Amino acid sequence: MAGNTTGQVFRLTTFGESHGSIIGGIIDGCPSGIRIDRQFISNEMQRRRAGQSSGSTSRIETDEVEIVSGLLDDITTGTPIGLLIKNTQQNSKDYEHLKDVYRPSHADYSYDKKYGVFDHKGGGRSSARETAVRVAAGAIAKLLLAHSGIKIDAYVFAVGNISMPETQYYERNSIDKSPVRCPEPDVSIQMQNYIEKLQADGDTCGGAIVCYLNNLPPGLGEPVFDKLQASLAAAMMSIPSAKAFEYGSGFESIHLKGSQNSDNFAIREEVVIPYRNSAGGILGGISTGQPIWFKVAFKAVSSLMKERESFNRKGEKVIIPAGGQHDVCVVPRAVAVVEAMAALVLADHLLRQRSARV
Amino acid sequence: MAGNTTGQVFRLTTFGESHGSIIGGIIDGCPSGIRIDRQFISNEMQRRRAGQSSGSTSRIETDEVEIVSGLLDDITTGTPIGLLIKNTQQNSKDYEHLKDVYRPSHADYSYDKKYGVFDHKGGGRSSARETAVRVAAGAIAKLLLAHSGIKIDAYVFAVGNISMPETQYYERNSIDKSPVRCPEPDVSIQMQNYIEKLQADGDTCGGAIVCYLNNLPPGLGEPVFDKLQASLAAAMMSIPSAKAFEYGSGFESIHLKGSQNSDNFAIREEVVIPYRNSAGGILGGISTGQPIWFKVAFKAVSSLMKERESFNRKGEKVIIPAGGQHDVCVVPRAVAVVEAMAALVLADHLLRQRSARV
Amino acid sequence: MAGNTTGQVFRLTTFGESHGSIIGGIIDGCPSGIRIDRQFISNEMQRRRAGQSSGSTSRIETDEVEIVSGLLDDITTGTPIGLLIKNTQQNSKDYEHLKDVYRPSHADYSYDKKYGVFDHKGGGRSSARETAVRVAAGAIAKLLLAHSGIKIDAYVFAVGNISMPETQYYERNSIDKSPVRCPEPDVSIQMQNYIEKLQADGDTCGGAIVCYLNNLPPGLGEPVFDKLQASLAAAMMSIPSAKAFEYGSGFESIHLKGSQNSDNFAIREEVVIPYRNSAGGILGGISTGQPIWFKVAFKAVSSLMKERESFNRKGEKVIIPAGGQHDVCVVPRAVAVVEAMAALVLADHLLRQRSARV
Amino acid sequence: MAGNTTGQVFRLTTFGESHGSIIGGIIDGCPSGIRIDRQFISNEMQRRRAGQSSGSTSRIETDEVEIVSGLLDDITTGTPIGLLIKNTQQNSKDYEHLKDVYRPSHADYSYDKKYGVFDHKGGGRSSARETAVRVAAGAIAKLLLAHSGIKIDAYVFAVGNISMPETQYYERNSIDKSPVRCPEPDVSIQMQNYIEKLQADGDTCGGAIVCYLNNLPPGLGEPVFDKLQASLAAAMMSIPSAKAFEYGSGFESIHLKGSQNSDNFAIREEVVIPYRNSAGGILGGISTGQPIWFKVAFKAVSSLMKERESFNRKGEKVIIPAGGQHDVCVVPRAVAVVEAMAALVLADHLLRQRSARV
Repeated sequence: MAGNTTGQVFRLTTFGESHGSIIGGIIDGCPSGIRIDRQFISNEMQRRRAGQSSGSTSRIETDEVEIVSGLLDDITTGTPIGLLIKNTQQNSKDYEHLKDVYRPSHADYSYDKKYGVFDHKGGGRSSARETAVRVAAGAIAKLLLAHSGIKIDAYVFAVGNISMPETQYYERNSIDKSPVRCPEPDVSIQMQNYIEKLQADGDTCGGAIVCYLNNLPPGLGEPVFDKLQASLAAAMMSIPSAKAFEYGSGFESIHLKGSQNSDNFAIREEVVIPYRNSAGGILGGISTGQPIWFKVAFKAVSSLMKERESFNRKGEKVIIPAGGQHDVCVVPRAVAVVEAMAALVLADHLLRQRSARV
Repeated sequence: MAGNTTGQVFRLTTFGESHGSIIGGIIDGCPSGIRIDRQFISNEMQRRRAGQSSGSTSRIETDEVEIVSGLLDDITTGTPIGLLIKNTQQNSKDYEHLKDVYRPSHADYSYDKKYGVFDHKGGGRSSARETAVRVAAGAIAKLLLAHSGIKIDAYVFAVGNISMPETQYYERNSIDKSPVRCPEPDVSIQMQNYIEKLQADGDTCGGAIVCYLNNLPPGLGEPVFDKLQASLAAAMMSIPSAKAFEYGSGFESIHLKGSQNSDNFAIREEVVIPYRNSAGGILGGISTGQPIWFKVAFKAVSSLMKERESFNRKGEKVIIPAGGQHDVCVVPRAVAVVEAMAALVLADHLLRQRSARV
Repeated sequence: MAGNTTGQVFRLTTFGESHGSIIGGIIDGCPSGIRIDRQFISNEMQRRRAGQSSGSTSRIETDEVEIVSGLLDDITTGTPIGLLIKNTQQNSKDYEHLKDVYRPSHADYSYDKKYGVFDHKGGGRSSARETAVRVAAGAIAKLLLAHSGIKIDAYVFAVGNISMPETQYYERNSIDKSPVRCPEPDVSIQMQNYIEKLQADGDTCGGAIVCYLNNLPPGLGEPVFDKLQASLAAAMMSIPSAKAFEYGSGFESIHLKGSQNSDNFAIREEVVIPYRNSAGGILGGISTGQPIWFKVAFKAVSSLMKERESFNRKGEKVIIPAGGQHDVCVVPRAVAVVEAMAALVLADHLLRQRSARV
Repeated sequence: MAGNTTGQVFRLTTFGESHGSIIGGIIDGCPSGIRIDRQFISNEMQRRRAGQSSGSTSRIETDEVEIVSGLLDDITTGTPIGLLIKNTQQNSKDYEHLKDVYRPSHADYSYDKKYGVFDHKGGGRSSARETAVRVAAGAIAKLLLAHSGIKIDAYVFAVGNISMPETQYYERNSIDKSPVRCPEPDVSIQMQNYIEKLQADGDTCGGAIVCYLNNLPPGLGEPVFDKLQASLAAAMMSIPSAKAFEYGSGFESIHLKGSQNSDNFAIREEVVIPYRNSAGGILGGISTGQPIWFKVAFKAVSSLMKERESFNRKGEKVIIPAGGQHDVCVVPRAVAVVEAMAALVLADHLLRQRSARV
């Protein structure tokens, strides 16, 4: 079966290509009774929009989300929620010269191998354009999660070789102050300068995002294959350009002894909890009720502002002219996508958890 | 819904607790016509078995796999394959003193929060004992993959601070020569010494495994949510103690510019291919036909050979005596589990791919 | 999980309410390489449209289907197909007097019990309006099935007490000649007269549809729970107003002895086949390659052209005025829906079957 | 994907062939906290066992169910429940003469067409032997349903031409008094006589089962594709030999006018309810809280006690000797299977319903 659905109880199915007239999705399984705050959705979309920082793509979409079903007086009714976002900046004709051409490090090649055809217009389905729908759906997931007090906050941890000193929780306010969504002002400025320099060079760069999940109830996650970290990892690795995922002590775990990394329990306010939370909020695939944090690494965008050689489907050499619409660094915009995917995972597990006990 | 099934077309569902009489699983969706080589399955099980290297648990199971359905004259018939593995070393009485006790950094606590009950006998369902079934099913997945020539080879890359110099492909022979499954003989010896030292200290350690997937056909992976890397990440992060996953350039991608990490195409034997494979064998979530490699990090086992303080369900302080059955370092045995999970993912995507074209 | 998705490999997810601005759906898993014939889709939609025979609802929608993704030059690309159909005749204000009112024998009551809310505007999600999307998606499924030569033909077998003499196959031409889609001209006229009489009385009636599946390859259907007849039954019983399903000898089987109803094999054109096909084209849940036929019974529409008493959510008695938009007999229009659902089931099983053998 | 799993939240996956050593299944998604009454399960199995009435197969299995996981002190823990039932009467050698032979009206032929292989030993996977696992799992589903007070009662309504006068509810006591599970004593005796006569003739017969679902909460069922009647129909049509399904007014609906079949609401004990329940307990695919009843028709067993001609895979004519193990009429034993499948459907929908509201 094809892979355009995510989630089991709270499910999102999406459609749409980069340069089609419209992209969209259906949320099935959203409970009734949630007030849909359109301004909130709009704000979330805004965080993913291009044009907020240096090095942003020249394609700027308004990204207005139409909700065409599933509501009565702005309250969810339990029926599927149809989401539509018009592509206003698509211009298919701009892409005629790429017909049958494999752009280097893009998915044209692998789509062609899989389907025997590929949409040459801006990457078609493989474009990160589709993540706009994820952010819209993630906003609705967040409104569900808000009923349980759950909070999700991601920020840019590293861009190229410029990195924050350590992983810790930041308020959204301090994150959103930064045009690159890095909550440490000094580091933020360095990141912007670096991105501007790369832009001048016609180059691009990778980066990393850290995400915190707070106020989670204990009990989320389904052993043995759908452990919470497994669902989060799949969700993050489904984001275009993501190359790595770690949670809690992550790769550092390799170097830690059991005596260093194992956590004792303690009593806090008459309740037993793991007191250092060295596990990162998950034990045996199930949330403990303590904060979860994870990091996602993104590679540099493969489009460069340089003329490049490549091949077409017939194996003929072709020259791809410099140009195209892309970001120098996707991670500032990907913050919204990481949060949206985390929200979709948590909404799904929150509902799945309702069947755990008789 | 609960999470004891993995895969969509080639699906494994498992059951069983660490100290139950039996563990097992059902493979549904295995195509007919595959010859089941029982010796091969037995060899795969052997690679996961305890007792092959220093620091291994004292619980040594025979791990004989009974295949009780789905075969006619040792050929698969297309009907579900029932797998049963008897627990021969379980002794539930040994665990009475742990009734209602939360062992530090184990899943007792989170299972209790989720289900209102937990099996105190050796971790119950949260024990890595369940991975024996994954290895048995993975062996059958490998037999399916062998029809397409696909190969899977994992090895231990790091144990604590002892690490191989670089990620590259190794033949299984060189891997299996090492009791810790590290194909570089010098590093292997250092790892063994380190594990022995930790054992003497009553401590444990983490490590990392690298896995190579070779001879994959192009076209495996389902955009957008079930990208091949997303399925692999979920599978790996579902293994007990796994804390991080990366593929291709992984976390290093953060530091690479597009001009460094983007790959051009080239012609090899009259066929267009990405010539450096800097993407790590996957573009847009779909295999390119070139090698895929990924790394998984594991934390140290949380059981220590030391008396420890903890709490029980009532919030009373308890002393857990030193002892119990566990490995000093799980990664040598986890090599078989990583390969099995990779095999399950690839078998599933291989069959899913059959519906890509009319 | 909610139930707005059907199919496992060829999957349709739908959204939309009767009086929303738009209804639609996403087909995920449609193979690449199918030419989409828009005229064919339009014809299929036309068969479900109101206004073709006596007793039809006064709400007449144009039902133009927009395909907004998944195509390149009108050929499927393997990516999800977005389908949108605008509601042009919705007028939500017409329904203010029904706010909080349970219409007799409608789903307002049960939706309210389930979700704590219901959309009073024309039945909301429970309206048969949603079947328009099924017909659009079914048309695409038929285009896939046409690659294998599979044909689906349904007709009206009975309306009230007026029934055809026996179940047999009819060509679509002879079916479509009849405004009530009954291929026997005499019976067709009686049905029309009966419907007109009921309309004059302000009453409604039930009916039955027979459907034939021809040129199926053997091997479709998945034992044991997803037998072909199980999938067909679920699909048919998901159609609004459907009350019964039978295939092959159906309810008549109760009265037949094994010696009457069991079928011998014979050789036809050097191939072994079940020669009478008394099983109705399915043995053990798997198609034999011979014709399959089934019958679906529909109840009368519950809306009557009469003033009626009912209750609102508070338990207060209310009077519902005569009126509203509905058909006297839905079965002529349901022919298109029955075919569409059969097409969706067969498309799904055709693709599932691709994994049966190594 | 293959079809050996049923349910979405409360899920059963089964394995096993008629003449394998063992059959079994895994329930995944059973909530924690249910006391497993082994005597109750044993009683349920007993109702399906052969040997209780005339015309029963000579193969009499003890059908003892081993529960090998998912319990602690006989209380469910939320982890998967492994069910094993040994086949004690299988004797594979008895079937060597049927190797490669297509038995008339059996599934050998269609399995061969699907998988390129079939298990000739007693029907392999297509044998009704697999329904023993359904009854075991259904018993556990009933224990879950009992927490909500839900009751399921099925009985034999017709055998051949001998039928009860009308559909109504009967207590289980009156049903179980009858060896053919027909609660009307006179009709029961006629049925037994008829079966004995057919046995003497070496013939077999069909029949019908009626099932009542009582004390259901309103709100079960998921529009639009997973309506409660759709799930019930699929479950019933997945039972071997089932040919037809109807609920509420069923096929009779064809003949009823809206003015006859549409139901008004009334106030009972200060609550609004549909007062005649002509809908049969379901409106818009969702339970109303009133009784649901449905009928399932079964064809006669295809095995006759007569020598028969048939063909083998090569197209050669073969003679199948009289004999084999089968029932003259399966419906008395199928009562337990109908109830079990209904229980699995309701358990699943009961848990799915937990996500309907925020």
